[in-house]
Amino acid sequence: MMAVDSVLLTDLYQLTMLQTYHAEQMQETAVFELFVRRLPPERNFLIAAGLEQALDYLENLCFTTEELDWLANTGRFSSSFLAMLASFRFTGTVHALPEGTIFFANEPILRVTAPLPEAQLVESRLINLIHFQTLIAAKAIRCVLAAPDRLLVDFGMRRAHGAEAALLAARAAWLAGFAGTATVLAGMRFDIPLFGTMAHSLIQAHDHEEEAFQHFAAAQPGNVVLLLDTYDTEAAAHKMVALAPRLRAAGIQIKGARIDSGDLAEHARRVRRILDDGGLTEVTLFGSGDLDEYRLRELLDAGVPYDGFGIGTRLDASTDAPTLDMVYKLQEYAGRSRRKRSEGKATWPGRKQVYRRTAANGAFSGDVLGLEDTPRPGEPLLVPVMEDGQRLHPPEPLAIPRDRIRAQLAALPPVLRELQPAPAYPVDIAPELRELAARLDRDRY
Amino acid sequence: MMAVDSVLLTDLYQLTMLQTYHAEQMQETAVFELFVRRLPPERNFLIAAGLEQALDYLENLCFTTEELDWLANTGRFSSSFLAMLASFRFTGTVHALPEGTIFFANEPILRVTAPLPEAQLVESRLINLIHFQTLIAAKAIRCVLAAPDRLLVDFGMRRAHGAEAALLAARAAWLAGFAGTATVLAGMRFDIPLFGTMAHSLIQAHDHEEEAFQHFAAAQPGNVVLLLDTYDTEAAAHKMVALAPRLRAAGIQIKGARIDSGDLAEHARRVRRILDDGGLTEVTLFGSGDLDEYRLRELLDAGVPYDGFGIGTRLDASTDAPTLDMVYKLQEYAGRSRRKRSEGKATWPGRKQVYRRTAANGAFSGDVLGLEDTPRPGEPLLVPVMEDGQRLHPPEPLAIPRDRIRAQLAALPPVLRELQPAPAYPVDIAPELRELAARLDRDRY
Repeated sequence: MMAVDSVLLTDLYQLTMLQTYHAEQMQETAVFELFVRRLPPERNFLIAAGLEQALDYLENLCFTTEELDWLANTGRFSSSFLAMLASFRFTGTVHALPEGTIFFANEPILRVTAPLPEAQLVESRLINLIHFQTLIAAKAIRCVLAAPDRLLVDFGMRRAHGAEAALLAARAAWLAGFAGTATVLAGMRFDIPLFGTMAHSLIQAHDHEEEAFQHFAAAQPGNVVLLLDTYDTEAAAHKMVALAPRLRAAGIQIKGARIDSGDLAEHARRVRRILDDGGLTEVTLFGSGDLDEYRLRELLDAGVPYDGFGIGTRLDASTDAPTLDMVYKLQEYAGRSRRKRSEGKATWPGRKQVYRRTAANGAFSGDVLGLEDTPRPGEPLLVPVMEDGQRLHPPEPLAIPRDRIRAQLAALPPVLRELQPAPAYPVDIAPELRELAARLDRDRY
Repeated sequence: MMAVDSVLLTDLYQLTMLQTYHAEQMQETAVFELFVRRLPPERNFLIAAGLEQALDYLENLCFTTEELDWLANTGRFSSSFLAMLASFRFTGTVHALPEGTIFFANEPILRVTAPLPEAQLVESRLINLIHFQTLIAAKAIRCVLAAPDRLLVDFGMRRAHGAEAALLAARAAWLAGFAGTATVLAGMRFDIPLFGTMAHSLIQAHDHEEEAFQHFAAAQPGNVVLLLDTYDTEAAAHKMVALAPRLRAAGIQIKGARIDSGDLAEHARRVRRILDDGGLTEVTLFGSGDLDEYRLRELLDAGVPYDGFGIGTRLDASTDAPTLDMVYKLQEYAGRSRRKRSEGKATWPGRKQVYRRTAANGAFSGDVLGLEDTPRPGEPLLVPVMEDGQRLHPPEPLAIPRDRIRAQLAALPPVLRELQPAPAYPVDIAPELRELAARLDRDRY
């Protein structure tokens, strides 16, 4: 198995640039901001997620002897540079959107203010950590919006991109309002509620489906959810009805039934009828199999009687928009604002702040991307979270960002809560920011 | 930072099923096979990758005291079951396609033969490990096919889905023929060549671009690749030409230039002309920025003078096909073949083998999916790799599967090596397998 904790989770060029900064003694304060350049066309808003893991990373960053020896053996680095790395720590300041904050294109999610080498080295992993959870939170919230009153469970571990993706997808989905996850380690690590039913293999390993149902119920009497579609879904529903009185006599209630293949709508209607006719009106129906927000919306619009859903692959890999255009850019160095002017990738320079205006009823009424030192009306969204390399607050219990998302969602213009693409939420660029950019374009080359 | 090594990287239902097997003493031998049900329309073939990590996982699988205590505290499991877990190990046999073997839909990549609980528990993580590397190898090989004689480097860490994805993507891309990766830890962990240039921030942190070039070259004299597009790409190329003699006088050769934005074709042509006119004909051009196999093909078909490319986000997230329909299914238990018959998801039962026929010149001429105990003409592709829970061979040096891929690619029908969708490679179902499936359908319910 693989441990993935290492300061060497970075791109080689970060180290070669650090060697340049070291040689030239460029240690002055740099300001980098992390933001998304454009939203995917399939997303009307994003939700900041992953800050806890990012702060954890920054607090613990250091080079081990083994890593330093390995770097030395590459022959790429000077001994004076390696000696500096031996005592390397992150000592900077971090401002960020609290996890669960809704944001839009070009709005900084996180700002790092630190000596240039420290702020530079952390780019790759900071993006890696915040990109993924932000990506998944955005996908998960769309599932919640499509099925707001249903039980949604993350089933995606097996086709998540590796172990860390599986764990962090479970976390991000829970923040976004999922009821829980099937991934056991995510339950242990993040205290997220766990859900699970049975797989087809349990049915197949028995010679008779009824026997499999009975054995499963006896071994797990508090959580009897039976999988119906291994052979014939409706026949299995009839077997459930026949089995229920025997289980009741043994003090066991069947809690639910899962359908995982075929026409999920038609099977649910038929199974619901069979169960209701058999007196199992309390038994809930749970659907799974290639689900996402679009499919959920279809099923619920058609009035299909599912009480909950397992959302797997399409959640954990965010298949309709599997990446975000998230970047981390230098905005100031040694007291001077800086601007990248690459075609199609120019940045807004300087230390920025997002000012969010709200109407009297709390509804979001437009953001201004401005400069930190020139306040604008509205709530400044970036708040200090780390100073001198230390967190300012203990990690938030996950319920707090989860509630924050729910509150922010209620304040979002309703058209942005739709699944289809909506006109962009208004994010104005403050005139002083435009002026700063224009001045830099004139002055510098 | 997060460690991700744990037997609890599994779905909850594996544990609840194991509790059922424990209660019913269902410990007989089970045979599970891992395969891809359908290829994505964008893929004409796949390449087995990730076996090493899967074997590592199986060899080291065990429950820690902390994990057992946590499971006990959930209240879901009996003390007798937890006592069994305390001594749980994987003791089974594994057959697999060697890493780097080309395969198609329905062909087993891996077969686990073990007592039912052992074979069941490992499902989630085995898929998670093999799915991702197989996914990335397929994407990477398409980049190699699009640009076979160019230097290709994995640049995707920052937008890979987490740390493990970044590391394993670097590994899978190298297997598929990439020259290396930018991810330092992948270089250390897997001994993959590392590549890196500089970021825009290094340029921006200097007051003058020339000065940034000069400092970088001085600090990294053996690997001077300059990034040209921070402000004005052609102006930067002229600065390179002006700088070159001064660097030469100091014994430093400029090795390459990177272009990362704008019209990559047009800029490359202009920069090449500027460099050639300035006597820098040896300097190579390296392109990056939202590249994938389609874009590479376009650039090279148009004769754009790039010598190499950094492929990032679209490789590490395999954005045009971000998941595979990979599953792990029970095919036999207690000596009897088993068949799942779910609509659209029925499996071919029994212990299977893939027989690959080749023409006299070595070209692949069609596969047969048959039964292990009924040999068919052709090479049997699944080979034993683990017995009694122990590897049969030490891990292969990565150069071996890398060479295997190259050899297999040469044997693949040329139409399948094209980027556009091709008619499916012929995979016949052996008559005895069809008969077995039909018999199970008649006999069992």
